[in-house]
Amino acid sequence: MMSTINLKDRSLLGLKDISRNEIGSILDRAAYWEAQEEKVTPILSSYFVANMFFENSTRTRFSFEMAEKRLGAQVLNFSAAASSVEKGESIYDTVRTLESMGIDAGVIRMKPDGVLQKLAETVKVPLINAGDGSNEHPTQALLDIYTMRKKFGELKGLKVSIIGDIRHSRVARSNLWALQKFGAHVNFCAPESMAAPELAQYAPYVTMDEAMHSDVVMMLRVQLERHATGLLKSAENYREQYGLTEARAAKLSKDTIIMHPAPVNRNVEIDDAVVESAQSMIFPQMSNGVPIRMAVMERAIRG
Amino acid sequence: MMSTINLKDRSLLGLKDISRNEIGSILDRAAYWEAQEEKVTPILSSYFVANMFFENSTRTRFSFEMAEKRLGAQVLNFSAAASSVEKGESIYDTVRTLESMGIDAGVIRMKPDGVLQKLAETVKVPLINAGDGSNEHPTQALLDIYTMRKKFGELKGLKVSIIGDIRHSRVARSNLWALQKFGAHVNFCAPESMAAPELAQYAPYVTMDEAMHSDVVMMLRVQLERHATGLLKSAENYREQYGLTEARAAKLSKDTIIMHPAPVNRNVEIDDAVVESAQSMIFPQMSNGVPIRMAVMERAIRG
Amino acid sequence: MMSTINLKDRSLLGLKDISRNEIGSILDRAAYWEAQEEKVTPILSSYFVANMFFENSTRTRFSFEMAEKRLGAQVLNFSAAASSVEKGESIYDTVRTLESMGIDAGVIRMKPDGVLQKLAETVKVPLINAGDGSNEHPTQALLDIYTMRKKFGELKGLKVSIIGDIRHSRVARSNLWALQKFGAHVNFCAPESMAAPELAQYAPYVTMDEAMHSDVVMMLRVQLERHATGLLKSAENYREQYGLTEARAAKLSKDTIIMHPAPVNRNVEIDDAVVESAQSMIFPQMSNGVPIRMAVMERAIRG
Repeated sequence: MMSTINLKDRSLLGLKDISRNEIGSILDRAAYWEAQEEKVTPILSSYFVANMFFENSTRTRFSFEMAEKRLGAQVLNFSAAASSVEKGESIYDTVRTLESMGIDAGVIRMKPDGVLQKLAETVKVPLINAGDGSNEHPTQALLDIYTMRKKFGELKGLKVSIIGDIRHSRVARSNLWALQKFGAHVNFCAPESMAAPELAQYAPYVTMDEAMHSDVVMMLRVQLERHATGLLKSAENYREQYGLTEARAAKLSKDTIIMHPAPVNRNVEIDDAVVESAQSMIFPQMSNGVPIRMAVMERAIRG
Repeated sequence: MMSTINLKDRSLLGLKDISRNEIGSILDRAAYWEAQEEKVTPILSSYFVANMFFENSTRTRFSFEMAEKRLGAQVLNFSAAASSVEKGESIYDTVRTLESMGIDAGVIRMKPDGVLQKLAETVKVPLINAGDGSNEHPTQALLDIYTMRKKFGELKGLKVSIIGDIRHSRVARSNLWALQKFGAHVNFCAPESMAAPELAQYAPYVTMDEAMHSDVVMMLRVQLERHATGLLKSAENYREQYGLTEARAAKLSKDTIIMHPAPVNRNVEIDDAVVESAQSMIFPQMSNGVPIRMAVMERAIRG
Repeated sequence: MMSTINLKDRSLLGLKDISRNEIGSILDRAAYWEAQEEKVTPILSSYFVANMFFENSTRTRFSFEMAEKRLGAQVLNFSAAASSVEKGESIYDTVRTLESMGIDAGVIRMKPDGVLQKLAETVKVPLINAGDGSNEHPTQALLDIYTMRKKFGELKGLKVSIIGDIRHSRVARSNLWALQKFGAHVNFCAPESMAAPELAQYAPYVTMDEAMHSDVVMMLRVQLERHATGLLKSAENYREQYGLTEARAAKLSKDTIIMHPAPVNRNVEIDDAVVESAQSMIFPQMSNGVPIRMAVMERAIRG
């Protein structure tokens, strides 16, 4: 039997606190899974995984569910109603309940910041963070750097500009922590109201023009609902200043790739025609998410 | 590998544009599946099917899910919240996302008219229409004519009267297109506000009394929420004029069968006692839906 | 083929009307399942089970789903939107629909009282009650007495005090009916507004102080939403009079066990620190629910 401590080591709460080697071995294992011809390899058929989405997300949940089922795992899905505000306490009770019932791993997404770490200290089953507040979204960043590595071979020296609502973005943070470990250069670009001053020590803020001169231009989703009209005058205004318009995209180097964690706000942070342009990796990112999550799930359950 | 074009040929968007032969072979294959003793025949166990219900429908989704699982397929379920208005754009992005993740076929239901055709031209995986706006609902009509064929042996010359809200009914349209190909005679019966003038060239509008003299009396669900009180004075009023009341049912020929796509509004378009009368095929229709959808799903994935 | 009558005997609508022997054999079979090393024993892989939750309950549904999947069953999940008021008629139509599609058993939870019995008389598939109104919740009581039997070996002579909203509690009723059959002594403790006078003939109402002198102290969830402020002045008030506070828990005999059907209202009917105290069986109850439901499901389908 594995000890509690070992089981916890199989959790994936974020990329800030795991080593470059460990990230590298997840990426390598994802490449293994991507190369399999057989869609289902039932190595986890006697294991139960609960997808606990206290914050709704069709596509992230689907990606995890597909990864789990490709490994033959038994899947239980939980989605809190979009309207219910979930507090740390009820999240804790739900996870403990599922643990008591005998799940072998849990995938969890939630709105509040700071709850996941305490939760992981209390429960014994491995937990995989599918996005917690504005803290981390490690599997998204893993699929992002997997996508970059496939394109560029090497992450060292890569210039990655992340554009948009840095302040609230767990995607930006997880990418920052991981890319740094591999020696990539991360820039941020954001209106003042969306900047995260505490991250300025790790990544410089650049202008939109500078950001366009990068190997990777990563656009973030504008959470329109989070911003008072005073901060963000209009979607059109945002698009003009911080959107990846067709005009801006036309001036990118042909080797630059365009990324976005999706779902996109077409014609807000990225123009409709750019989403499926030749340089866009947006749909390939989604494809890459499945083998990444297979690798993460396999690691959670089999170590 | 199959080419894109062949894969698209496996879609089922409607019955208007597929041949009588092709419909016939689906019906024959459904009969094969209905005759199987084993409930699960896992010929699709390495394939992923996404049920994407942008318009909620417990029973249609269950019927598809049962069909898929009887074939051993891996099933992903997506239901948009009843309240969210889904636009064509977000439907497109969801389907493209699932396609990117590697689904092998998608079942899709949606409110808007005219979106499905464009969608099917863009995505590569086979799509099965589980009801789109007031356009088509091909698997419902397939199970309907399968039910008629089981009862009457032959569809040619059969007199089928469809009664109710023809204007908004995708069930009426899909039945019309399919039944015509087999030489059945379709009549419509509807209050003026529920008539579809553009279909008058294909099927005559008859009175309720005439409609009762048919081999098949097919009642449609009144979408009470769709009609202003001016158009439809009251449910009771509708029942008197266009409902299959016990009194009307008692006068039907003993060989006439009663059909309804369900869910029924008891005592509005059909009386409570008639729903489970000996001539009612309403529950047998539901039973027949599973082998029909098995045949459609098998065709989508295996060709 | 089994006859209809035999199939119905496999239903589990409540514990009032089944024999002590039958309950005993379910508990014994649960012990067998609990002892299995393998998590999945696919004896039901060609059977379909529908979980029909007309009243939402994440944890009860999860427990059933886990039990079903540990037996390899094919699972269909239905959850009515929390907001929709489900009437007996629409519940009936949904169950009949699923029966027509070919499910082999149904798990059902619903708000209205008195609907389940009529439903079970009409449909042919075995039904398992996952909680109906304030009538019964048999699998909860089975896991409760299974938990007691594991702790005390013998139920005869056991003193069990059930505290809280007896009037609306299906858990209290199912426990009462079952415990009586085994010769346990049941007491109730409740404020007047939460008492069920019609049950006084079966179990005496005692004071909170008396209730604390029991082998089992079973706290019920306060359904705060059910009580007008006049009846229940405040949660704090309730806690003082009827809550299992840390102070009260400290005075319990060391052999007394604390139970609760969950989810708990922390610091209302039970203090936070008591929930996970050494004497609390709340999480073990959840663990025990899975083998109990495996035994019930196996009995429903295999007899």
